[in-house]
Amino acid sequence: MAVRSLQLAAAFLCIFNAGSFPLDPQTAQPATCGYESCHATRPDMLNVHLVPHTHDDVGWLKTVDQYYYGDRNDIQHAGVQYILDSVVDQLLKNPDRRFIYVETAFFYRWWKQQSSSMQQTVKQLVNEGRLEFVNGGWCMSDEATTHYSAVIDQMTMGLRFLNDTFGPCGRPRVAWHIDPFGHAREHASMFAQMGFDGFFFGRLDYQDRARRRTMREQELLWRASDSLAPPVADLFTGILPNGYNPPPGFCWDQSCDDPPIRDDPDLEDYNVDDVVQRFLAIANSQALVYKTNHIIMTMGSDFQYENANLWYKNLDKLIHYVNAQQADIGTVNVLYSTPSCYLQELHRANLTWALKTDDFFPYADSAHDLWTGYFTSRPALKRYERISNSNLQTCNQLEVLGGPGSRQGPFGKGDSQTMKKAMAVAQHHDAVSGTEKQHVADDYARRLADGWRHCQVLVSNSLAALSGSSAERLYCDNLNISVCPLTEASKQFSVNVYNPLARPVTWPVRLPVNGTSYVVSDAKGKSVECQVVPVSAATREVRKNRGFAVNELVFQVQAPPLGFTTYSVSLLQDGPPPASTRHRTPTAIQNKFLRVTFDPDTGLLSSLSNLETKQTIKLTQNFFWYNASDGNNSLSNQPSGAYIFRPNSSTPFIISRTARTESVQTAALQEVRQSFAPWASQVVRLYSDSRALELEWTVGPLPIQDDLGKEVITRIDTSIKTSEYFYTDSNGREVLQRKKDFRPTWILWQSEPIAGNYYPINSRAFIKDDVDQLTVVTDRSQGGGSIKNGSLEIMLHRRLLYDDVRGVAEPLNETSSIFPEGLVVRGRLLLSLDRPPSAADAHRPLAQEVVLQPLLTFTDGALPPNTRLEFSGLQAALPPAVHLLTLTQWDEDSVLLRLEHQFQSWESKLNSQPVTVNLQKLFSTLELLGVSELNLSANQWKDEMRRFHWTPQTGEQPPLKKFQDASVWEVTLRPMEIRTFLLRVSLRQS
Amino acid sequence: MAVRSLQLAAAFLCIFNAGSFPLDPQTAQPATCGYESCHATRPDMLNVHLVPHTHDDVGWLKTVDQYYYGDRNDIQHAGVQYILDSVVDQLLKNPDRRFIYVETAFFYRWWKQQSSSMQQTVKQLVNEGRLEFVNGGWCMSDEATTHYSAVIDQMTMGLRFLNDTFGPCGRPRVAWHIDPFGHAREHASMFAQMGFDGFFFGRLDYQDRARRRTMREQELLWRASDSLAPPVADLFTGILPNGYNPPPGFCWDQSCDDPPIRDDPDLEDYNVDDVVQRFLAIANSQALVYKTNHIIMTMGSDFQYENANLWYKNLDKLIHYVNAQQADIGTVNVLYSTPSCYLQELHRANLTWALKTDDFFPYADSAHDLWTGYFTSRPALKRYERISNSNLQTCNQLEVLGGPGSRQGPFGKGDSQTMKKAMAVAQHHDAVSGTEKQHVADDYARRLADGWRHCQVLVSNSLAALSGSSAERLYCDNLNISVCPLTEASKQFSVNVYNPLARPVTWPVRLPVNGTSYVVSDAKGKSVECQVVPVSAATREVRKNRGFAVNELVFQVQAPPLGFTTYSVSLLQDGPPPASTRHRTPTAIQNKFLRVTFDPDTGLLSSLSNLETKQTIKLTQNFFWYNASDGNNSLSNQPSGAYIFRPNSSTPFIISRTARTESVQTAALQEVRQSFAPWASQVVRLYSDSRALELEWTVGPLPIQDDLGKEVITRIDTSIKTSEYFYTDSNGREVLQRKKDFRPTWILWQSEPIAGNYYPINSRAFIKDDVDQLTVVTDRSQGGGSIKNGSLEIMLHRRLLYDDVRGVAEPLNETSSIFPEGLVVRGRLLLSLDRPPSAADAHRPLAQEVVLQPLLTFTDGALPPNTRLEFSGLQAALPPAVHLLTLTQWDEDSVLLRLEHQFQSWESKLNSQPVTVNLQKLFSTLELLGVSELNLSANQWKDEMRRFHWTPQTGEQPPLKKFQDASVWEVTLRPMEIRTFLLRVSLRQS
Repeated sequence: MAVRSLQLAAAFLCIFNAGSFPLDPQTAQPATCGYESCHATRPDMLNVHLVPHTHDDVGWLKTVDQYYYGDRNDIQHAGVQYILDSVVDQLLKNPDRRFIYVETAFFYRWWKQQSSSMQQTVKQLVNEGRLEFVNGGWCMSDEATTHYSAVIDQMTMGLRFLNDTFGPCGRPRVAWHIDPFGHAREHASMFAQMGFDGFFFGRLDYQDRARRRTMREQELLWRASDSLAPPVADLFTGILPNGYNPPPGFCWDQSCDDPPIRDDPDLEDYNVDDVVQRFLAIANSQALVYKTNHIIMTMGSDFQYENANLWYKNLDKLIHYVNAQQADIGTVNVLYSTPSCYLQELHRANLTWALKTDDFFPYADSAHDLWTGYFTSRPALKRYERISNSNLQTCNQLEVLGGPGSRQGPFGKGDSQTMKKAMAVAQHHDAVSGTEKQHVADDYARRLADGWRHCQVLVSNSLAALSGSSAERLYCDNLNISVCPLTEASKQFSVNVYNPLARPVTWPVRLPVNGTSYVVSDAKGKSVECQVVPVSAATREVRKNRGFAVNELVFQVQAPPLGFTTYSVSLLQDGPPPASTRHRTPTAIQNKFLRVTFDPDTGLLSSLSNLETKQTIKLTQNFFWYNASDGNNSLSNQPSGAYIFRPNSSTPFIISRTARTESVQTAALQEVRQSFAPWASQVVRLYSDSRALELEWTVGPLPIQDDLGKEVITRIDTSIKTSEYFYTDSNGREVLQRKKDFRPTWILWQSEPIAGNYYPINSRAFIKDDVDQLTVVTDRSQGGGSIKNGSLEIMLHRRLLYDDVRGVAEPLNETSSIFPEGLVVRGRLLLSLDRPPSAADAHRPLAQEVVLQPLLTFTDGALPPNTRLEFSGLQAALPPAVHLLTLTQWDEDSVLLRLEHQFQSWESKLNSQPVTVNLQKLFSTLELLGVSELNLSANQWKDEMRRFHWTPQTGEQPPLKKFQDASVWEVTLRPMEIRTFLLRVSLRQS
Repeated sequence: MAVRSLQLAAAFLCIFNAGSFPLDPQTAQPATCGYESCHATRPDMLNVHLVPHTHDDVGWLKTVDQYYYGDRNDIQHAGVQYILDSVVDQLLKNPDRRFIYVETAFFYRWWKQQSSSMQQTVKQLVNEGRLEFVNGGWCMSDEATTHYSAVIDQMTMGLRFLNDTFGPCGRPRVAWHIDPFGHAREHASMFAQMGFDGFFFGRLDYQDRARRRTMREQELLWRASDSLAPPVADLFTGILPNGYNPPPGFCWDQSCDDPPIRDDPDLEDYNVDDVVQRFLAIANSQALVYKTNHIIMTMGSDFQYENANLWYKNLDKLIHYVNAQQADIGTVNVLYSTPSCYLQELHRANLTWALKTDDFFPYADSAHDLWTGYFTSRPALKRYERISNSNLQTCNQLEVLGGPGSRQGPFGKGDSQTMKKAMAVAQHHDAVSGTEKQHVADDYARRLADGWRHCQVLVSNSLAALSGSSAERLYCDNLNISVCPLTEASKQFSVNVYNPLARPVTWPVRLPVNGTSYVVSDAKGKSVECQVVPVSAATREVRKNRGFAVNELVFQVQAPPLGFTTYSVSLLQDGPPPASTRHRTPTAIQNKFLRVTFDPDTGLLSSLSNLETKQTIKLTQNFFWYNASDGNNSLSNQPSGAYIFRPNSSTPFIISRTARTESVQTAALQEVRQSFAPWASQVVRLYSDSRALELEWTVGPLPIQDDLGKEVITRIDTSIKTSEYFYTDSNGREVLQRKKDFRPTWILWQSEPIAGNYYPINSRAFIKDDVDQLTVVTDRSQGGGSIKNGSLEIMLHRRLLYDDVRGVAEPLNETSSIFPEGLVVRGRLLLSLDRPPSAADAHRPLAQEVVLQPLLTFTDGALPPNTRLEFSGLQAALPPAVHLLTLTQWDEDSVLLRLEHQFQSWESKLNSQPVTVNLQKLFSTLELLGVSELNLSANQWKDEMRRFHWTPQTGEQPPLKKFQDASVWEVTLRPMEIRTFLLRVSLRQS
């Protein structure tokens, strides 16, 4: 099937995607949901849109399942099962009532426990627009600490459930991020590409809000990409008037104490007149800071509507009495509404809107309350989430490549669903953000581990199918601390290296061993250069008694695109001794690409050179800690906490001016091990084939015997002339320019010179001048800033003694059973020094390799004779600009594919060009029987996606460029474009 | 109509009581409510009756209307409107579910706001026994501080509403006093006579409970009268296992934190097995302390079920999983049930039950936690409630006697309903008990005042109709402190004295005046002896600037039974001067009945003599205060509070060993005014025609500058040899014997020597030996005890600085705008010294006169010429043993009449005899067209009342004596009998 017409597509869909996008098969007639179901408004009056809603955190103070069931109400009264029970009951009582629901992770749990008659009832409510889904992802993702890949996945999962269950009436029209603590431009870009007509949120900088209120710019048009042609990434954005709460005095939830409407004149305290007057005053005053004769009021809050009757009974009365009193001479009309109904009225107003191109970071709700701490909070969880995404993508790919046998094979039943859900839940804005209670963080990690256990079975099955060997495979998830029981003990084993990238990679492998010499050979039986080095003191310290290796075996592996290769390792009885460590700081370490010098007096880095480009910068790097404010401060009593970063002083304490060092220098790797304190060390490392300098830091347990909370940074000070600028990525994709003490859309009054200059770093940050660009690629989301010229600092770890009074009610003071004295965290920064015009050519693939890293599996002993040792799912590597973002099973005979152009339009001469990929020539083992393009979230056919058109105040009317592909199979990707395809496939018998 | 057959009665009823007792006219077919609607049980298993219920205080921390609406949830989360909304919704979801509702004050408020379709739905639930009313009074009355008259009224009002609304299916089968703090025998007697099959409560002495658990006597037969022939006052009584709460771990209300049943195996924390095991353990252990294979569990508590889904969803699961697990080999069967369904099973068990004849006072929930403080708490409210009852009965009577014109007449629209409701609400166990928050106490008082305002219009209309004069009538409610603007200023006025008793009374009147001499003449124009005396210093102090009279005009009035007479008063220009006060303590004061001597050194009473019986006792009396425990005590940290009396020491502090005195001695009255402190004074007073010695005490503001809480008593020490016995009434009716440090049904370990010997005194207490009985009649409910031989102490006022941790969360520290420095309270004790065998002949009528006192109304100037000055509603006074308890309008043409034999069977040779009253000859202006006898609460025909028969452990089978009246009109009353009649009447045109 080379050509796809609409008719064909519909037929095609009916085959393998029954019930998805067409009309709800249950009702068999067009439903009046969506914009059609909105209540009429009054053009001559101020229309107040009351939006009943609940905000249900997918974990925060309680775990997601505790929230679902209403368990542990001693921590927080919240039970989502009851919310949905109650709301449905109450919607049925009055057809005027409306409700929106947001978090599919909860709705899904509820739905599967309902009887079919209840399911039918709910479908009818949805079809009539009385129950409307907004946002609709599995959760409401965090925007500062998430990676776009996982965000797209979790939105896709939530929206797919709604689509499968409710058809088009279940498709949210509006994105709704009422709680996240600042807003990422990349999120807006994704929402636009997911087909949302608009976006509402609740939190932004208090100075920003003040200006926007005055200027009536609380509703605006966000142009969320500098590479995608408008209006592809344009998103109408509305800032809600009261965060996401009701106006003061009008909260009628069971969790509130506001007076109910007492309208029985026979009883005491009749208050209808008072309520109406208060409401009109609030409505009229709100109207002054918005543009149209429509305003929105969010009538709900965290976990509200558990007893929806309280809300609706009083809202019914409010609407009745306000409108009754207004009937003759009034100016205010109140109605039940939804965000989409409100949005429709804004759209009908046909105005122009302020244009915004930057983002909403950092978020401050007051002068000394900068929400920039969570950029780094819980660094271990942040890393675990990121590596889990890598593992999940591998799992997804191998589910496709391995065929049905991957789900049910020699190792039993495996699935990717468990991990998908765990990852989706982990995107929540109190999950990977690190702003949850400790026991909830533990639950997220446990879910990821459980998901990975399910995936491991699938991966083993798939690799068995692809390799032809059912030999047991072991997984070593703790290689970062040199723990792997198999390699520690075995004299002969093989390592399968699966590469989830669509291009071949070279990757250094370090395996904990107890032998002193090994032979490593590749899939072709060719011997591979390897080196045994002693395990560092820092690693022995951090791994505790979880492993006993004295050495590490180091070698470079090369893995084919979307495939694996296999190395075999044998202990060599009389081989050369391991590399020795030296206790003097070397002047320099280097490989063929980089040279790094050290200051012999301090043991610190002193310069970095790119030997290919022949550029050198001065570079010193050290570790510091900010003393976290304990709240005892004349300016403010705000302490540092899980959310908020507030150093007591702008000058960080240095941990040590000098590093104790030891070094290992071999042909395979060169490393200098620096120790700054018992709780802070680093390895400066160059592998022979690496173009990036690796800084492997190990921080913790942060000492708190001095009763001082600590926020540890590493700071890189260079000779680059940054002129107060630096750059950070947004959710791992497009890069935004940052400037010290500056915000692009208002004149900043900077009240927190450090915290107010911190931004989220999801995958990279860089500083540059005309000749040099130093890019730091991170292995997880972190906060960072450039406080001084030429300097870049990244916060690595935080340990705090006070809660920051934003609800979590725990100091961020992580310990565990293994680390009762405080968590130790290890991570890597990869430094790349390049010429600015070509820096992206290095950091884009480099960051990609960190995000989707090879998966190693181990088999003890010799492999069975007919084992296939090498495999690639692709016919050929994809071009460097193209990233295979998603390959995952969709239905029995279809897979979802996302291809991404991973360069911004301006960042590379070489790569910022359109690229065409022929889908038919993509896969080596999949036969493509059909293709349909979808929107980014895969819940709408791309060609059926219609969005509201909004005009910016610039008056500019960007033409919607319709690029035409050469054929349905030959798809062209333009800079930063992601294209989503549903492929009907069959597995070629190999 | 002289003869009444059943047929006639039914016909009669249809005429003037449509829809009341016959089948619910809406359903037109027999409903299956009541016992028939109970779920089947398993005779071979332990049956656990789960009883979903809510306990809705008719005011406590919030006012009744705040509770109804859910206002002031900042004080306590509670909203009854939502409870009823929610329960009805949830009952509809599963026909197995049951709910009981108790407090008609709330149900009534809700019902009148419902649509007719909702009303129909609720009727169906009631008719199917899914919603069952228990108790059903307007409130759940207090038992220690209420008067039977008001309790019967409030029960009648609540049950009538249920009857009128739901017919027989709305009739509660079970009395339900789960919260009151101790239980009065008279309440049990009333409940028996109201037709209840059984009674359940939650609170009893912890020692009592322990013994009853061991002996399996938590279910018993209470013989609640020593005068009524069994089983008339026999009441099966069950003590609930967990107060009225669910067993630990099984509270699923929104207000609880117990874990919900988590039965989705896909989610974390599946706990079905754990829940089932915990439940079985609790059920089996509970079964050990009860007699049958049925046990009850109250699944609810204070204001629970606001979101009934939480409860029912989990209860459904509990029942499902427990019974499923038990299906094969189990021993436990769980079911939704109600108290009546549980009672039915106990009845079916056909066992014998322990017999109890005393009461459940005092209540202690722990060794030092005696709930005997509330017997006196808020003495001003307690008095206001009592006088309000008197006023209401007058209002009721005059509504009947004055005809329809009393409700709509020259003074506008009047009604008795407002006052009835206010009085009914005031009977609640946190109302007159004094255990509510201050603002709620204020609300009760405000309601009573509002009710009285409505009644005043009715009374004025009625008196206008009966007297033929529409001259304005003024009410002086503050005569006790000598405040009455009219009499203070007027030179000529008339006083109408309405006597609500069915016999003539003589009554001393004291009017504040500013003249020095007056002429008073009676209805026949005859001059009446009168005396002007100076207002006392204590009265001037306590009235503050509310009145300015310098003198009081004192004269005795004589009022006809159930009628009025009129006195006219004129200022005399040159009359004799007022009586003078002397500042020396007289040796004695006396009238023709009594002589009282004083100790000239101390100014205190020294003896009391009855001159008729020629008996004399030594009697000293003084005022003391107990230092309230502040909780800092090695034995316990329990402080005295609104509920709990806990003196710091058993020895009270004397206020003063001597009294400063002044005296007034005239022919009309003799009084000695004693002052003990600026905050404690008393008038010892003898009116010329009085057989009782009046002690008018004025106490307050209690000083607290010393930071000591104070509980003020007066103690009367006599020469009577009491042998540790004394006597108190139960709810103003039968008298119970009390013995120091003793309880009739268990061996007491006395841990609180004072508080543990306190009992409620509602109308009287006495001490006696073989020759002397000193009876003290109180004007309100108070606590008291006899700690020493010959001694009787009564607590008058309390002012406390600590909360006693029983929920009210306020120290009982009463102030008001008039008394910001602390409340001043004034009251009277009437002392009667008699020979024991005839003492009741004195104290019964004496107490009655205090309960139903004459109402004075005033008209300025001369009355119009044709004014009728005297009227009696009776043809003749009733015999001394008979009290006209109730005369109140029922329907347009029917009235409710209650006649009461007011003597116990043993207390008077003269009066403890059956008395026959001819109803036809009762009223002077009412023609009786029909009569039907009702049960005590007027919600069932007497001859249709069938109660379960219960056998006491004594094995005795009392024959139900059927006394036969001579005719339907000639009704015989036996000691302590109350008979309730519905009379069809027409007003004779006079």
